[in-house]
Amino acid sequence: MRSRKSGSEKVSADRSGILLFGVGLGPGDPDYMTVRARDIIASADKLVHFCKKGSRGNARATADAVLPPDPEREIVLAFPVTVEANVGDAAYDGPISAFYDAAAEQLAGEMAAGRSVAVLCDGDPFFYGSFMHLWRRLAHRFPTEVVPGVTGMAGAWARAEAPITWGDDVMTVLPGTLAEAELTRRLKDTDAAVIMKLGRNLPKVRRALDAAGLIGRAIYVERATMAGQVVTRLADKADDIAPYFSMVLVPGEGRRL
Amino acid sequence: MRSRKSGSEKVSADRSGILLFGVGLGPGDPDYMTVRARDIIASADKLVHFCKKGSRGNARATADAVLPPDPEREIVLAFPVTVEANVGDAAYDGPISAFYDAAAEQLAGEMAAGRSVAVLCDGDPFFYGSFMHLWRRLAHRFPTEVVPGVTGMAGAWARAEAPITWGDDVMTVLPGTLAEAELTRRLKDTDAAVIMKLGRNLPKVRRALDAAGLIGRAIYVERATMAGQVVTRLADKADDIAPYFSMVLVPGEGRRL
Repeated sequence: MRSRKSGSEKVSADRSGILLFGVGLGPGDPDYMTVRARDIIASADKLVHFCKKGSRGNARATADAVLPPDPEREIVLAFPVTVEANVGDAAYDGPISAFYDAAAEQLAGEMAAGRSVAVLCDGDPFFYGSFMHLWRRLAHRFPTEVVPGVTGMAGAWARAEAPITWGDDVMTVLPGTLAEAELTRRLKDTDAAVIMKLGRNLPKVRRALDAAGLIGRAIYVERATMAGQVVTRLADKADDIAPYFSMVLVPGEGRRL
Repeated sequence: MRSRKSGSEKVSADRSGILLFGVGLGPGDPDYMTVRARDIIASADKLVHFCKKGSRGNARATADAVLPPDPEREIVLAFPVTVEANVGDAAYDGPISAFYDAAAEQLAGEMAAGRSVAVLCDGDPFFYGSFMHLWRRLAHRFPTEVVPGVTGMAGAWARAEAPITWGDDVMTVLPGTLAEAELTRRLKDTDAAVIMKLGRNLPKVRRALDAAGLIGRAIYVERATMAGQVVTRLADKADDIAPYFSMVLVPGEGRRL
C-alpha cells in the first residue's frame, strides 16, 4: 500500500514501465470493459488467461470481441483440477498451489525478459480473483498495476433490474460453500445479500433462504450480461442446476426517499 | 455505437428506443468508465447529474475528461439539503422526497418529448445510488437501461493494493451510520469489511474497529482513483476528517493457495 497520484501520469501500457497487469474485464458483456482494460489488453506483450482443462477461459472469451485469438501472444493457464473442488481439500490445495507457483514463474520469466503480461480477470481482479494468487507471488518483484472491473454481481443486479442496497442497508456477500446453519444465520442478519459459488450448493442455499424467510425475495441470475443469461425468481427455478457463473441476489429494502 | 447530433435536436436518434439511462461512471478515474458508459454519455440527448448546491457534481467531473461542459445539454439536480444529513431525519426526508419527485417529473417531460436522458452516477447506479430514487419513479414509465459501473470500493481496494476477499471469505458492507455496538458486532462476525459513509462517523468507526480487534488491519482510502487520493493505514491517520468519498477497508485473510 502506498499513496499515489492518480490520472495525470498515466501513459499507454507499454510506456509506463508496468510489467504485470491484473485486468478486470467485467461481468462478460465486452461493452462493460473499462477504457483502461481495453487499452492494456490491446498493448500488453502477453495476454494471460486461466481456464479449465480443455475449455476456453471465460475472461478470454469476453476479450474476443476486441482481440481475436493470437496464439503467439497468449499464455494459457489451465487449472490442473476442477475449480469446483472444495477449497481446503488436501487433494485440491496441493496441486493448485503448485500450479500457481509454476504459473508465477512462467510469467516472471516473461517479465524478466522485459515483456509485459496482462492477466485477464473475470469481474474485478481483487474480488475473489484467481489473479490474487499470482499477484501475491509477483507484485513485490515486478511493477504492477491492478485495473478494477465491474463485478459479476453488479452485472447481475443491473440485469435483474434489482437495486441491491438502499439508504443504510447492510450488504453481505456469502459463498454458497458455507454450512447451512451459518448461511441461515447470516441471511437473517443482513439487509441485502449476494450468494456466490452456488454449483452443487444450490439446494442448501434454497433451504437457508427459506429458513431465513427470504425465499420470496431471492433472484437467481446466471451468466449475467453474457449469451445465455437467465434471470428468474429463485422460487420459480424448477431445477437445482447452477453453473459457475450464477448467483443469488437478495435485494435490500432500505429507505426509499 | 450510437451516433448523436447536438443536444438541441428534438427527436432522439437513439435507435434502441431507450429513453432513461442510469450510467455508472466508476470510481472517478475517467479511464475506469466502461465502453458502454462512454458511448451513452456521448450520445444521449440530455446529461443529468446530481450535486450539492453551489458545487459541481463528482460524476459530472468524472465525465469532464470526455465531455466538456455543455449547458444546453445538461440538467443539474441540486440537492436541497446536505447529503450528509442522517437518513431518517424528518427534516431530511421531506424535502429530499419532494426533490426526487420534481426531478423525476422534469426528466419525464424530456422523455415524453422524445429526448433520451442519461443520469451520471458515481460508481455503480444500483449500489447505494441516488439514481435509484429516480429509477423507481420512472423505470416503469419509460424504456430504461442501467449500465453497471466499477464501484468506488473496487477502486479503493485496487489503489490500496489490498485484495478484499480470498477463498470463502464473507464480505460485509457497512454504513458508518450504524450504532457503535452494531458496527462492532458485525465487524467481529465477518472476514472482510467495507465501511462507507464515514463523515462525522469516523471516530465511532475507529472505536468499533478497535473493539473488534481490527484496527491494525483497517485501511483508510479517500478519493480513490481521483486527484487528491489518500491511502493510509487507519491507525496512521492523525485526524478524524473524512470527506464524502472516503471509506475504510478491512481486507479478508481467507485461504491463500
